This record gives sequence, C-alpha cells and structure tokens, in this order.
Amino acid sequence: MIYFDNASTTKIFDEVADFMCKHSKEQFFNPSGLYAPALCVTKQINEARESLLKLLVANNHKIVFTASATEANNFALRCFMQKNKKMLVSQGEHSCVFETAMHLKQQGVLVEFVKLNSDGTLDLDDFKSKLDDNVGFVSCIHVSNETGAINDIKKIGQILKQHSPQAIFHCDGVQAFCKIPVNLLDLGVDLYTISSHKIHGPRGVGALVFNKNLHPKPLIFGGGQEYGLRSGTENSSAILGFVMAAQIMQKKLEQNMEKILNIKNLLIQSLQELNPNINATANSSPNILSLGFEGVKGEILVHMLEQNQIYVSTGSSCNSKHTGNRVLVAMGKTKQQEAGNIRISFCEFNTTDEVLTFAKVLKDCINKIRGLDIWKK
Amino acid sequence: MIYFDNASTTKIFDEVADFMCKHSKEQFFNPSGLYAPALCVTKQINEARESLLKLLVANNHKIVFTASATEANNFALRCFMQKNKKMLVSQGEHSCVFETAMHLKQQGVLVEFVKLNSDGTLDLDDFKSKLDDNVGFVSCIHVSNETGAINDIKKIGQILKQHSPQAIFHCDGVQAFCKIPVNLLDLGVDLYTISSHKIHGPRGVGALVFNKNLHPKPLIFGGGQEYGLRSGTENSSAILGFVMAAQIMQKKLEQNMEKILNIKNLLIQSLQELNPNINATANSSPNILSLGFEGVKGEILVHMLEQNQIYVSTGSSCNSKHTGNRVLVAMGKTKQQEAGNIRISFCEFNTTDEVLTFAKVLKDCINKIRGLDIWKK
Repeated sequence: MIYFDNASTTKIFDEVADFMCKHSKEQFFNPSGLYAPALCVTKQINEARESLLKLLVANNHKIVFTASATEANNFALRCFMQKNKKMLVSQGEHSCVFETAMHLKQQGVLVEFVKLNSDGTLDLDDFKSKLDDNVGFVSCIHVSNETGAINDIKKIGQILKQHSPQAIFHCDGVQAFCKIPVNLLDLGVDLYTISSHKIHGPRGVGALVFNKNLHPKPLIFGGGQEYGLRSGTENSSAILGFVMAAQIMQKKLEQNMEKILNIKNLLIQSLQELNPNINATANSSPNILSLGFEGVKGEILVHMLEQNQIYVSTGSSCNSKHTGNRVLVAMGKTKQQEAGNIRISFCEFNTTDEVLTFAKVLKDCINKIRGLDIWKK
Repeated sequence: MIYFDNASTTKIFDEVADFMCKHSKEQFFNPSGLYAPALCVTKQINEARESLLKLLVANNHKIVFTASATEANNFALRCFMQKNKKMLVSQGEHSCVFETAMHLKQQGVLVEFVKLNSDGTLDLDDFKSKLDDNVGFVSCIHVSNETGAINDIKKIGQILKQHSPQAIFHCDGVQAFCKIPVNLLDLGVDLYTISSHKIHGPRGVGALVFNKNLHPKPLIFGGGQEYGLRSGTENSSAILGFVMAAQIMQKKLEQNMEKILNIKNLLIQSLQELNPNINATANSSPNILSLGFEGVKGEILVHMLEQNQIYVSTGSSCNSKHTGNRVLVAMGKTKQQEAGNIRISFCEFNTTDEVLTFAKVLKDCINKIRGLDIWKK
C-alpha cells in the first residue's frame, strides 16, 4: 500500500496508540473526581496543555481541547466573533470555517469573503480594501488543505492590526502545525486551530488556542470543563496522545520537512514529462501537492490508482460530499482543471521508492486514459 | 483499590481498548475518502449505527455520534427545540441539560422547570399543570445521575402526547442505557442520549438517537458528516469501541442487574446500624446509591475513604465545580442532608468482598467523625 492521503488523515504513531491503550485502562478516572487518582489525570491534562502552549510559543494564550479541528473552528467563529461587526473570511478556508461563516451570514452577521491569488494565497489587495474600523473578526487558513499554499500569516496580521486594530485574528493551522514552523508569538494571531489526527495523533481531539485576554461565549454547556467553555468529561487519553504526537513531530520537524520536500520535488520531477498543472508552486507546504493533467478526470485517476493500492484524493475529504472544488474555483482554475485535480499528501513514513512506483503507475494510468496505450493501438 | 464511582466514569473493557488500539493503527483511513479502505471504515460505522439502533429497539430513529453525552444533550435542546414554543425541563436533569436550558432561557426561550418528588422522580402533577398546546419540547432524565431515581418515561411520554401532542420528547438515558432495559419503541421518546464511557466504552464518544421524521438544525458546521448535523472527521475507532462495549453490556444486562442489585442491597443492609438517609429508595437503579449520615459531611467522607483507596463521590462529577447539589435541593433535602451526601455507584466488576470492606471502613470513618471512637475515649 502507498498512502499519499496524509492531509486527510495520518496513521497514528504506534507508541501513541499503545500509550493511549494503557492509559485508558489504568488511568480511566474522571478528572472531575475529588480523589487523588482523578486529580492526577487533571494534572496530566494541564501539563499537556502547558507543553502544547510552549511548543506553539504561545505565551499569551490558553488552550481549549475540542473533539476535532472542525469543532475548534466552529468555536472560533461562533463564540469569539464580535456582535454587529464585520467578519472577513478568506475564500481558501476549510469547509468547517466556510460553512460556519455561511451559517452566520444567514443569521444576519455581515460576512465578506476575501479573494485568493492564482497561487492559492490570500489576495492582500482585496484584503486591504475590505479592512476598516468595523471589521471585528478575520479568519485565514495557514496552509491550504486543498493546495498546500502557505499564507504569510504574520504579514496578514500586521496589515489587519494596522487597519482594524480591534479585530480578532483567527488562523486555521491544521495543515501547518508540526509540518512547518509555527510560533504564535511571532505570527501574532489571537486564535489558532490545531488537529491531532493530522499529525499521527489519535482521532477525536483538536484544540483552539486563544488569546487569554479574550472572553468568548461557551460552545457546549454543562459541567464547566475547559474553563466553562466546552463542557463534557475530558477525553484524557486522547488529549495526552495528541500532545505526545505533537512532541514527537516537533522534535523532528526540520528533518521531516527536508525529507518530505525531497520526496515532493522528486515526484514533481518524475511527472515532468506528463506536463502537469501544479497548483501553489511558489510558496507551498512540502506535505501537499495538488495537480492535474489535461483531459484526465481526478476521480477516475483516484480509482485507477486505488487498483494498485495507491491512495490519494481529489481534494479535501471534508469536501468530498460536495460537488466541485470551491477553493480551486476561487484561484481562477477552469472547470476542467477543477475536475482534473488530485491531491497527493505526504508524511514522514513515505519513501522515495514509493514516489518512483507512484510516478510509474500514474504515468500508465494517464497514458491509458489519454488513449496512448489502449485507444491508439 | 475499590472503585465505587462508576456513575462518573467506568473502566474501559480490556477487549474494547485492545480492539481500538489495533483498529486505529490498521484502519486509520478517513471515512470521507473515495477509495476502498476508507469506504470500508464508513461501512463499519454504519453497521455500528444499525447495531446500536437495534439494541435500543429504535425502529423509527437515526443516530448522530457526538464527542460526549454532554454534546448530545446540547444538540437535543439547542437544535431540536421548536421556536416560540415553551420548553419544559425537569429539575432533576444533568448539568449539561440544565445549563443549556438556562442558556436558552437567557436567550429569550420560554423555559419552565418541572418539580421533583421527594424520591427524586418527576412530579407528575406539576408536569401536567405545565402542559398545554404551547409546549414544544420536554426533557426528562431516565435515571438520575445523582440519586439513581428512575423516571417512568413511558408514562411521562403518554401524558405529554395527550396534553401537548406536538411536543418533542427528549430523554437523557446516560445512566439507564445498558444498565436497565431500554426500548425506545416502548418508551415512545423522540430523542434519547447515550454515552460510551459510562458503559465501559471509550471516552470521547456519545450519541443522540432521534426520530427520523424530525429535521434539526446542525450543531457543528463543516464537511457534512453525520447527516450534515455534526461535522468533523468521524472518530471511527472510538465509535466502533462504543458499540462493541454496548453489545457486551447488553448481552449480560439481566445478569449484571441482578448481581449489582445484590451488591447494593448488601451494602444498604451492612450500613443499617449507621442509620443512613437514603435518597431514591423506592424505584431506583441498581447502579447508584445516594445517601448521607447525620452530622457527617460528604466531602470529608470522600477524602477519608480515599485514604483507604476507596473512591466514591459527593455527587455528579459534572457538578463538582459548583457548590451545593441542585437536584437534592429540588427533592426537598435540607442543607445538612445536601452537604452530607455521598454517591456510591457500582458496576459488574464490583464484588461482595469490596462491599463488606467498604462498609467496615465507612463505619470506622463515620465513628471517627461522630467522635465515638476518638473523642469519647
């Protein structure tokens, strides 16, 4: 099996799964309990929270653990937005930000969408033109889950604070965290969303990191867990597994980035003769390669590759229930380019051998589809 | 260690933890993926959904998996309520229902709280007096998480449909499911909440079972998972672990009920000489025993028992951040009784030996506190 769909989800680290299995059996106590073994779990969770803040260089922030990044992004937009103020959302957002913004818009919130450049990054001119004193909230993705395009979050934040100093700045960092350097102090964001299952951690846990001077509304009401903002018995083992995965990833960040970039470049090189249309070339994540081939439908490629136990996607998993690709359209791609897109996403477990096999199979597939092999004989 | 805090959380079944560990390593694929291994996980989840519906005899229902019962209860009240109609909520609800209702009340929803009898069950006369055509939503807990009191949900539902036929009926079944027989067809509820970690399943997963003719608002926006009502990548291994635990529990329901009832009765008998005030005697769950001893503070008892590695609580974990016990107050308990309360909650792993040891230690603790041993010598 060649698994090139790591932007969708990653294989959990064996040591994380094993740790969680043991922890859930032995330290199953409810952190809200008043006795020592329960308080011990609370302590573990709080230590994990501190480690995560440190890892993000988030000196001025707090963390609320959620069940997913989707939930964290809903939390960010719905509970931190400023009433009667404008919300700006990039056209390149993940569906959980986009759909939440659309929902808020239907509820009467003034929401405007900021254009993208053809390389998938935020159009800074369009952004500036929409900024004024009435902007209360901005959401911009760090690394595009569709194309890997990296936004210059620090610069966007500086422009924002200059023109709309009261605005709250949210950044969805799901595809950035533990994949490229992330330093919240440097980035200057108020809110940052991260996910566990994209970094070889367990499913079912994400987090919203937020400026501790902000006072949001609660997302889920109940027993008052997570600073009273997101009630429900803490998913202790998963939270600890998440932070464990983040620590493992962060330790080898530089080395992984180099390794994965080499793999990506090797693949691009190997596919040169097929003349691919590559999205987001200039400044993009080593982990994601989004491309298409003229006259070849993405969905057909995915299924042909699958016959060879090679797994890629046509784009974001969380968009697989919708038709079309909203982000590629915003980048100005044609209908054909949109339908032709496949997303190849890497992790540290991928090898150059896998890339070479993949390139070979992909060439065969495309040649078949283009009729060079089958139809012209 | 003697663990008598099973209403707070339970120890995960070893086989469930082991299964999840293996599943998360091997079948980590995102169910939204278009390729076979991903579709296989989708199939597993849907089969689990069907099994759970069958287990609940919920022929007319659908299931949305959530991260917790707290989330499921928030979902029930916030997304199924009928606009401009009255909401009735029992005074005996878990804090996640109570706090959500309080939030809705602050938002302008007409919320009324229905009184409890002194045994912890719903006061049916007060309930009837509040029913009319304008009632749009009713929430009543099945088994009280504080006292174990069992509400006659079928009867409550019948009264409701008679007086307020358009009302939606929600029941929080967290302490009932897999502990007493639950048959949704018979109970006649529209919505039913269940939790995994209360039945030796994993943390981080719960569910709302709902009448499939209802069309709620989404709780979490995004990729459209869970019928578009609760987006976010499915927590596959945890969902499957949850249903596995439910199946194990359901198979031995009768036998566990008998075993646990014997344990509870043995404890009551062993404590007779201490003259306990027992809440919810008449019709209560085998799993929960809520009681107090005159002149003895519950919190002090919890900490004294802890010295002997015996773990109980003063009440609901999800109420541990609040002072006082709202449910006991609603039952008409005095301030002293409220402060004196401890909750002992059992599971199938508890033994008669544990009960006898516990009774002995408890007597020593109470005698110490009452000064019979120490102060009178």
